[in-house]
Amino acid sequence: MIRIIVIGTGNIGGHLCNAIENAALPKKILLTGYYNRAQKKLPHSNAALLTDLNNLPESDLILLAVPDDAIEKVSQQIKKSKAIIAHTSGSVAMSALQYHQNHGVFYLPQSFSSSRKPRFEDIPICLESSSKEVNMVLEIVAGTLSRKREQINSSQRKKLHLAAVYMNNFVNHCYAKAGEIMEEASMDTHLLDALMRETLEKAIVLSPKKSQTGPAIRNDSKTIEKHLQLLEKEDREMYRSITKSIQKTHGKKL
Amino acid sequence: MIRIIVIGTGNIGGHLCNAIENAALPKKILLTGYYNRAQKKLPHSNAALLTDLNNLPESDLILLAVPDDAIEKVSQQIKKSKAIIAHTSGSVAMSALQYHQNHGVFYLPQSFSSSRKPRFEDIPICLESSSKEVNMVLEIVAGTLSRKREQINSSQRKKLHLAAVYMNNFVNHCYAKAGEIMEEASMDTHLLDALMRETLEKAIVLSPKKSQTGPAIRNDSKTIEKHLQLLEKEDREMYRSITKSIQKTHGKKL
Repeated sequence: MIRIIVIGTGNIGGHLCNAIENAALPKKILLTGYYNRAQKKLPHSNAALLTDLNNLPESDLILLAVPDDAIEKVSQQIKKSKAIIAHTSGSVAMSALQYHQNHGVFYLPQSFSSSRKPRFEDIPICLESSSKEVNMVLEIVAGTLSRKREQINSSQRKKLHLAAVYMNNFVNHCYAKAGEIMEEASMDTHLLDALMRETLEKAIVLSPKKSQTGPAIRNDSKTIEKHLQLLEKEDREMYRSITKSIQKTHGKKL
Repeated sequence: MIRIIVIGTGNIGGHLCNAIENAALPKKILLTGYYNRAQKKLPHSNAALLTDLNNLPESDLILLAVPDDAIEKVSQQIKKSKAIIAHTSGSVAMSALQYHQNHGVFYLPQSFSSSRKPRFEDIPICLESSSKEVNMVLEIVAGTLSRKREQINSSQRKKLHLAAVYMNNFVNHCYAKAGEIMEEASMDTHLLDALMRETLEKAIVLSPKKSQTGPAIRNDSKTIEKHLQLLEKEDREMYRSITKSIQKTHGKKL
């Protein structure tokens, strides 16, 4: 049985605690306890709320789900032991944890929110380990939670995190802008739900490069000009720069 | 029975022909025939390939699925009659068809491709009509194909088309950029599929404005700077302009 402690119970940490406690049988992992600065009990957890970061109970794996810039400092508050310490960040190098002999990374490229229950089994867990022994343990834990594991080093992970900004933050902002335009013209934003879904499915099946359509890739400057006229002045820069980037990516003249 | 002729059998026209021929029973609509310039037979159609645009058989509705800039011209090649003529474009005004007494618009905000069978029942059909009588016919046809119909006027439709550019073309390009970054770092692009799906589901359930996360909305200039350094020079403009737009939209200081 792998005994796990989770430090930090924000969006990622809280969902991780639940996922560990609800892991499929036969149980290979156990949530020994969790810690958060506010000393707040998790509503759906039977594990212990730990009170002292400097004096944690014995465990095999300590998962740090704290903000990026707290990772190194928090890790150094934890007593050295044989336990593996792993952070869950997309952009912090594994070496931030080198104070501890056994360390690694347990990164889930997903957008977590308190109001939505994540489907852990579909989230690929990106692992990095300071040794083969550490990797063995992380593989078992990840394999218990998800159907997909990947070995991703710190330099790749930085890129993965950047890609996730496009895939989540930027895509979501395009959704928001579309919604704004619909609302301003008194139309139901859900009119575009079918297009939103088809855009995603097509990109997964055909690849986004092969799925690109629209005025930018067609070099349809008449339509682009009409669109720019319809937009508020402050929205034109983003429209123009994405249009330019589409044309560049697909080798169209600028 | 409403007799329909489809002019133009590209992505939209071809799928429309199939959908009309395969409409649910009891049949209220019938594909009388279809026309295309290349005189190419549709592989899965039992309807007639019409040979003369100037001499079409009698029908109740002629659907124009031709390129935007051909709509007006093609419509004037069709003999005046009582038949309703409707185009399927997002950006052309209904008045482009005023050569014919009974005219309208039958717009499907979806991204069609030859390789993917659209689920017509989920695509809202946006209608505009020159009269109540025209609207009655278009409503029946649309209601036979889809569960969702909307009355959208020409000025709204232009905005809808612009919103669709964000929802489809721009979103897809963000997918493509994410994929590029993953590939360059030798990672499987499908690692981000779960994030891609969650981004969409969360935006539909919570609204995109409430779903926004990431360095831009957090005003996390350290991470933004790191990302810009990881990007090729030519990709920085788009990253910057979307970041600025997120901050503007959410009232963050620039």
